[in-house]
Amino acid sequence: MFSLNERLRADTRPVTDLGLSRVLLMNNRLWPWLILVPMREGAVEIHRLEEVDQATLMREIAQASRVVERLFAPDKMNVGALGNMVPQLHVHVIGRTRGDPAWPGPVWGSGHAEPYEAAEADALVDRLAEAFRSTP
Amino acid sequence: MFSLNERLRADTRPVTDLGLSRVLLMNNRLWPWLILVPMREGAVEIHRLEEVDQATLMREIAQASRVVERLFAPDKMNVGALGNMVPQLHVHVIGRTRGDPAWPGPVWGSGHAEPYEAAEADALVDRLAEAFRSTP
Repeated sequence: MFSLNERLRADTRPVTDLGLSRVLLMNNRLWPWLILVPMREGAVEIHRLEEVDQATLMREIAQASRVVERLFAPDKMNVGALGNMVPQLHVHVIGRTRGDPAWPGPVWGSGHAEPYEAAEADALVDRLAEAFRSTP
Repeated sequence: MFSLNERLRADTRPVTDLGLSRVLLMNNRLWPWLILVPMREGAVEIHRLEEVDQATLMREIAQASRVVERLFAPDKMNVGALGNMVPQLHVHVIGRTRGDPAWPGPVWGSGHAEPYEAAEADALVDRLAEAFRSTP
């Protein structure tokens, strides 16, 4: 049994399910911004996952980073697990570019957001899902 | 050969060296704030570490989280690898408390900082080092 937090669902589109994590695309076209949600009901903190899940999560973070790099060639990856507002464990994997709207600060709390057009989000979700299939 | 970035050195006190990472205490008494720096010269991105180092880093993040929880009992751990300003790979492990000066936003870029008194930092570094020795 796994249910996705309402707020996470509202702000994102589903991309694909990996071995542990559901991959979501944040609905903010200013950044290539993925969110990994380990499909473990009630998980809040990384260090309280089973050790095998922690290891899988790290591999999935690395895979998501490679996918973002491959499609967007950012200058820097930002990876973060905060959860101050949404307690369900989720890990942000974001491609940053020098001079992007929040650079060099964090994207969280920057207030910069611009939703995708529906067709643009559909197309990107397809490209991302394909990139996850072909990127180890 | 491993050298610590000048900015990281200036902002922190060394706590201990783990198998992979040097643990630093951020000089900001507003939060229990550790920084793990994998001792791999030139490392910038987590996903470009060797896979065995990625796994070790995850275990060390979990250990650091347990140490912070044990000593400070925060409400939430925040874990992040940004590196937009300091490219040397480093992972923040921060204990957050509801109502802390940046809550619920991220600490990075919040502008809130208050350095430790020297004796206070010395004592805390000792407590942290001991906690790392006794916390798996």
